[in-house]
Amino acid sequence: MTYDLWYWDGIPGRGEFVRLALEAGGIAYRERAREPGADGATLAADMAARREYPPFAPPYLVAGKMTLAQTANILLFLGEKHGLAPKSVEGRLWVNQLQLTIADMVAEAHDTHHPISSSDYYEDQKAEAARRARSFREERMPKFLGYFERVLEGQQAWLAGGERWTYADLSLFQLVDGLLYAFPKRMATLAASYPKVMALHARVAALPELQPYFQSGRRLPYGDGIFRRYRELDAA
Amino acid sequence: MTYDLWYWDGIPGRGEFVRLALEAGGIAYRERAREPGADGATLAADMAARREYPPFAPPYLVAGKMTLAQTANILLFLGEKHGLAPKSVEGRLWVNQLQLTIADMVAEAHDTHHPISSSDYYEDQKAEAARRARSFREERMPKFLGYFERVLEGQQAWLAGGERWTYADLSLFQLVDGLLYAFPKRMATLAASYPKVMALHARVAALPELQPYFQSGRRLPYGDGIFRRYRELDAA
Repeated sequence: MTYDLWYWDGIPGRGEFVRLALEAGGIAYRERAREPGADGATLAADMAARREYPPFAPPYLVAGKMTLAQTANILLFLGEKHGLAPKSVEGRLWVNQLQLTIADMVAEAHDTHHPISSSDYYEDQKAEAARRARSFREERMPKFLGYFERVLEGQQAWLAGGERWTYADLSLFQLVDGLLYAFPKRMATLAASYPKVMALHARVAALPELQPYFQSGRRLPYGDGIFRRYRELDAA
Repeated sequence: MTYDLWYWDGIPGRGEFVRLALEAGGIAYRERAREPGADGATLAADMAARREYPPFAPPYLVAGKMTLAQTANILLFLGEKHGLAPKSVEGRLWVNQLQLTIADMVAEAHDTHHPISSSDYYEDQKAEAARRARSFREERMPKFLGYFERVLEGQQAWLAGGERWTYADLSLFQLVDGLLYAFPKRMATLAASYPKVMALHARVAALPELQPYFQSGRRLPYGDGIFRRYRELDAA
């Protein structure tokens, strides 16, 4: 079965967490809103037409009769179905738990530039963004990155132990990658304190399974999505 | 097996979503941080000592050798193990998806009074809170509540259809209950537009399974948790 992935074109966003799992897992999919002739209106119309199991927001994955939304939920499905997570109850829930913690940090990274309203421009909430970004840089980044470092200290190469990556490793790569883009100065300061997290980022970047994707030109650049580079929001 | 639930004493918080599932499911548990002699330090010490599968934050549930954190993850476990969600892959993932959407709104409700930093006082972010709360009341509340109304229009009495409630129904009850506490004026305006959501709230409130808990005095009042009643953040 070829899955249909629906997500906004033009930004990596939350869709990228799903893409990395599909790509690294060698799973066939189409990106419906990125096909020729499709645009945001195509996506909005498709989403509105899904009466059974409606998504609240993209990304969502159509798998035959099933429509799955919420990034962590899509990954839970792909993990179970395609062996991208341990099969044991314990391992499967641990990977889900990690994914939800990654999602929490992703949401907080987004809110650094949109602390008041997602539907308003950044320019209309710059003062608040400066305050929120400072709190994120000084308190939240060390707290979250320190947590993942601690997890990796208890495991081997990968977050869930084992010989092979899970989808949570791919997601942590994407999170760190986005932070390196959005907060280069802060990450330059912090990187030395979280060597295992940074090593995981490098290890996923070098995964043979992902090289065709990285070289394809299909991986979208950062820009107006979750991870944005506003110089005034970054500091060492 | 009697589970150990660890969560801060004194606020319903995210722990309440787990408590409602445990209580409605008739599942034996102890609240370790609410036992005589225990306090926040007891919880912090226990959490720090959990080296394998460490939680990022409370609530977490100890089930034998397993330690499970992240509210939606704990509920996923309880749902599978104790029949608080459908057994089918489709139904189980749908309930998880709903739970994650509920969690998103819970996080946004929290951020209305702490839009800058969770570790600062509300008094130090009142101006930003006023702006964020307005966006929440005017844009986000109708969007989320409208979504759940639409879901209920496609189902019967419960979010996942079927004859019996799932843990997502309990969580939607708790979310609406918290909104009624924190935003009474706004909810008075909105309630008429979301009759099925309000009916679900009333239906869960009347569940025979929950009456002993509601009458026990163990259900904590709102106050300094996620849902707070600051008059200046509410408006019709």
